[in-house]
Amino acid sequence: MPDKPTLCRVHFLPDDRTIDVERGETILAAAQKAGIYISSLCGGDAICGKCRVILRSGPIQSKPTTLLDRDEIREGYVLACQCTVQGHIEIEIPPETRLEEGQFLGDEDAQRFGMLSLIGGAGFPYAPLVRKYHLQLGTPSMRSPLAGHERLKQGILTREPDASLQAGYAVLRDLNQILDQSHYDVTATIGRREATTEVVQVEPGDTSRENLGLAVDVGTTTVVVQLVDLVQARIVDSEAKYNSQMKYGEDYIRRIMYANEHNALDAMQRLIVGDLNELIEILIRRNGTNLHSITCAVVAGNTAMIHFFLGLDPTGIRKEPYVPAANFIPPLRAAQVGLHINPRGLLFTLPSVAAYVGADITAGAVAIRLDEQEELCLFIDVGTNGEVVLGHKDWMVCCSASAGPAFEGVGVEYGMRAARGAIERVHIGPDCRVEVETIGNRPPRGICGSGLLDLLAEMYRVGVLGRNARFQEACGASRLVKKDGNWQFVVVPKEDSAVDDAIVITQADVSNLIRSKAAIYAAISMLVKTVNVRTEDIRHIFLAGGFGNYLDIRNAITLGLLPDLPPERIHFVGNTAIAGARAALLSEEALKRIENVARMMTYIDLMANPKYMDEFVSANFIPHTDIERFPSVKPPRGPRGGDT
Amino acid sequence: MPDKPTLCRVHFLPDDRTIDVERGETILAAAQKAGIYISSLCGGDAICGKCRVILRSGPIQSKPTTLLDRDEIREGYVLACQCTVQGHIEIEIPPETRLEEGQFLGDEDAQRFGMLSLIGGAGFPYAPLVRKYHLQLGTPSMRSPLAGHERLKQGILTREPDASLQAGYAVLRDLNQILDQSHYDVTATIGRREATTEVVQVEPGDTSRENLGLAVDVGTTTVVVQLVDLVQARIVDSEAKYNSQMKYGEDYIRRIMYANEHNALDAMQRLIVGDLNELIEILIRRNGTNLHSITCAVVAGNTAMIHFFLGLDPTGIRKEPYVPAANFIPPLRAAQVGLHINPRGLLFTLPSVAAYVGADITAGAVAIRLDEQEELCLFIDVGTNGEVVLGHKDWMVCCSASAGPAFEGVGVEYGMRAARGAIERVHIGPDCRVEVETIGNRPPRGICGSGLLDLLAEMYRVGVLGRNARFQEACGASRLVKKDGNWQFVVVPKEDSAVDDAIVITQADVSNLIRSKAAIYAAISMLVKTVNVRTEDIRHIFLAGGFGNYLDIRNAITLGLLPDLPPERIHFVGNTAIAGARAALLSEEALKRIENVARMMTYIDLMANPKYMDEFVSANFIPHTDIERFPSVKPPRGPRGGDT
Repeated sequence: MPDKPTLCRVHFLPDDRTIDVERGETILAAAQKAGIYISSLCGGDAICGKCRVILRSGPIQSKPTTLLDRDEIREGYVLACQCTVQGHIEIEIPPETRLEEGQFLGDEDAQRFGMLSLIGGAGFPYAPLVRKYHLQLGTPSMRSPLAGHERLKQGILTREPDASLQAGYAVLRDLNQILDQSHYDVTATIGRREATTEVVQVEPGDTSRENLGLAVDVGTTTVVVQLVDLVQARIVDSEAKYNSQMKYGEDYIRRIMYANEHNALDAMQRLIVGDLNELIEILIRRNGTNLHSITCAVVAGNTAMIHFFLGLDPTGIRKEPYVPAANFIPPLRAAQVGLHINPRGLLFTLPSVAAYVGADITAGAVAIRLDEQEELCLFIDVGTNGEVVLGHKDWMVCCSASAGPAFEGVGVEYGMRAARGAIERVHIGPDCRVEVETIGNRPPRGICGSGLLDLLAEMYRVGVLGRNARFQEACGASRLVKKDGNWQFVVVPKEDSAVDDAIVITQADVSNLIRSKAAIYAAISMLVKTVNVRTEDIRHIFLAGGFGNYLDIRNAITLGLLPDLPPERIHFVGNTAIAGARAALLSEEALKRIENVARMMTYIDLMANPKYMDEFVSANFIPHTDIERFPSVKPPRGPRGGDT
Repeated sequence: MPDKPTLCRVHFLPDDRTIDVERGETILAAAQKAGIYISSLCGGDAICGKCRVILRSGPIQSKPTTLLDRDEIREGYVLACQCTVQGHIEIEIPPETRLEEGQFLGDEDAQRFGMLSLIGGAGFPYAPLVRKYHLQLGTPSMRSPLAGHERLKQGILTREPDASLQAGYAVLRDLNQILDQSHYDVTATIGRREATTEVVQVEPGDTSRENLGLAVDVGTTTVVVQLVDLVQARIVDSEAKYNSQMKYGEDYIRRIMYANEHNALDAMQRLIVGDLNELIEILIRRNGTNLHSITCAVVAGNTAMIHFFLGLDPTGIRKEPYVPAANFIPPLRAAQVGLHINPRGLLFTLPSVAAYVGADITAGAVAIRLDEQEELCLFIDVGTNGEVVLGHKDWMVCCSASAGPAFEGVGVEYGMRAARGAIERVHIGPDCRVEVETIGNRPPRGICGSGLLDLLAEMYRVGVLGRNARFQEACGASRLVKKDGNWQFVVVPKEDSAVDDAIVITQADVSNLIRSKAAIYAAISMLVKTVNVRTEDIRHIFLAGGFGNYLDIRNAITLGLLPDLPPERIHFVGNTAIAGARAALLSEEALKRIENVARMMTYIDLMANPKYMDEFVSANFIPHTDIERFPSVKPPRGPRGGDT
């Protein structure tokens, strides 16, 4: 093909910028040279599909891709990273493809969740699920004629003598060139896939200091991603958002029904994976890294969310005999589910116990080291479902209660997740003066879980709420206002709030929250009765959930969310699902322990038990119908404080 | 979307046939209903890309595919199996997509190679690399609530208690639906991938009787595929063709240079994979099966061909220190290299020893059970490269000689591979009457390896060839004719041949063949000297190669291809590479033994040894310059029979 030009002119629209490049250059590279910034997260690996541009005229050579659909291709869309310039061409950059400087860096909403999980990863032996070794393999000679692939294996085996190594096709195919060009000085990324150890990738030179992983918690209401430095074993950054599936139902049973009725399992999967990719994109941009450096993701979540995330049929979860498609998920390649990390990166999905006790609980149980405890412990995870585990290192029983997402800020008018500007502490002083503290000391935008718990306990303490959880109109008159015929309590007046209105809590909000706490307390009671122990035998209570960074244990008892035990026995442990996922990321042993916990936990089905409903109804008071159970909780102030 | 029609009209061109189908039906299914047969090997899995049709008008929904390039998509091409009808549409069937009845079944050229490999698979314990189990798993109940994936694993473990099972994403994703629809009556296909056992696929019902595998030998000159019934452990059918890479060089060194100079590694890979897919297609159609039933392929071949087949960089093979990219290849998914078998099917590539001793030799060595032999054995594989192995169960040394493809029929005017119509036996009677036998008793079309060997030995015996391998013009006058100034010997006169001309052998043909045999004999001599044994210590010689079904051992000695040992020590064993590949297909132990042989063989580099050239020159006579080495070979008849 000698008659084709070597230098090709590329004209970019709408910028009207022109640049000459060598034939064979990618459009992405040409744009960069022309000073036009095209969005690309994967750096040209045809993974992220962000770099779509429109070919207006001229010859190109393109690799087939599944990231563009037929209509897009017919409209002229191409992936800038997958097309090479073959002559003079004209390219249009659509607005969505253009990368604006600081698009994400300045996001006021972004909340760093560095402290969201209060449990550290210390105590598990350091052995990340995916690790990098810098290897100087020595060049082959007549005396040392070992083939490239075997030379690499030999090099890795000097670091991990017992590994049963296996390289995938992509690694094998590119290996020789990488060895050759790097003079046999490479970094091998390896990851454990059950009995074999996979050579995930081989890169030229020493990249062993750049190895990132993701700890992920896919909640029914909230999705959290933590970026973890696997070399330094530290959290780099975190980000969270509400689950986009919420529009198809607040609880996952509704979503399963929706998916079945509308044949929408794929769509539901895309929503979750899309949420995660959004969070990953924010984390990548904010921390100046790229997809390539993220070699691994560990995902926790309840059983239904794990099913949706993987596109597994969740039908069995909602129908008797409540059988999931899978509790134990083999390691996969993250790209297989569409997760935007290193295209060869591994995806570890943590194991579930049953349809209603998922990987968030097995991960959490290991995060709090329940499997090491000698004494009787209670582990409570307050999420959209409230799961409760009772036991210690030798046995564990668990159950689930439909608590609903009220403590995650959903179904509460000014509820919000624990993000900047969320009220996380509330104190009601004399004359119903309400003092609040917000996350990041920002002007208040709403109230997160711990703030709601404080608020209810304080309203009860000062007599604004009665034991029946109804507003006591005689009290707090200055703050109680009627709107559209319904009473509401003003937490932050309009002039002090960041939302151009007063931040209030309504009677409906209070009822939602009380139902939530009642469901959990009833589950605790049932579990204690089922295994025939006494509440006072419980030496430790671990309370987990995305409440925020701070939670007042005393208030949790006052409200009757937790049993009335000495506060020193009760520990608020934050998001333990993400802590467990992070522990697994950093420690093969932690992963094994999570798998072991999933096998040893016995699931107790409370929903079928009519006594559970009785317990639930009794718990719909503050702290409880049976006040004897809460000797330390003082009756509230006010005219009807003693009312039952 | 209630306003879209439920029944859609599909109009097929150029047939001008119209059919109404339900919206959502695939175009492939619509064509079948209309009685139009569209080529599709994979049955709608978007693997084979055969079912391309052109959308002329109307709405469809299509899945993204990499089997169509950008230009094709813009011209309207779609894959009939991946597009659903969404309204009234018009479809054009291009001629290449139309399946003509009996297109392959009647192929006169097709030669069944059932007997091509003379070594059986008996003696290796039966344990196919990929096997199927029919499992009745029992439906879940409240008492038996095991999740689908774990239920399947439990079922497989009843058959293989020690397996470390792992299911891939595709299996996991579809499992629940298959379990549900089949009432938990399924067939699991499992395959060994090093330390783990993979669940390759799960099908509803009992398909355990349908499990096919491919034994493949990718030769420099000839590519052979054998279809093997893995359940009954028998050869179903075989097919062979010349390697399409031949146009880039008869030997692989030239092809490596070509690939490097033209950046054509991908293209070279596509050629080989294309050849294999052609052979697979013939085997599938001829035996009325489909891609789905072929769950496994085992591939042998020399090191260079294995590199080309897998798209591995072969550069190191031709340059000192002669280091391949890989000798040991992990099991891959066949679809990864583009091989058209079950999309989830596994590809096992047998291991090589060094750049010039490949998987064809390790496979062959195990096929002849060299690794069990107590006495000294010589294993000779006459292919484009002639490889020689000397040793027994405790040690093996091996080397390679550039024999060239003359005995495969290439570089010989009327040479051909062992297919129907090939002359495989030749006898020269009184008055130079030439008697021939052809494969399949067809009219002769050419001469295959064993026929050429016979022909030369007979020409030498009757004095037409002198010891210097030149035509003796005084002899065989009736058959020796001059054409364009060069002598040629008429083997079959025009009136008896199937090729509309006389079948002859030229002086140039003879020289090619003699160089070939000399290269191999010289290699044998060098190896014997290197390890300091005597030729007469060799208890067994195994001669392998694609000569045909029949080879006259006595003639091989007469020509000086083999050392002059008692004929009962010499065994013609046919294509041992394919026999070894088939043994591995059917026996995990055979695969392990081939891997073990690859580790224990010591490669001796003859090419760098100047003594090899001396040996080669001396061997360019019939039987050899040093006639003392061949006491049993009588001098030829004729005036200059005794000439040295």
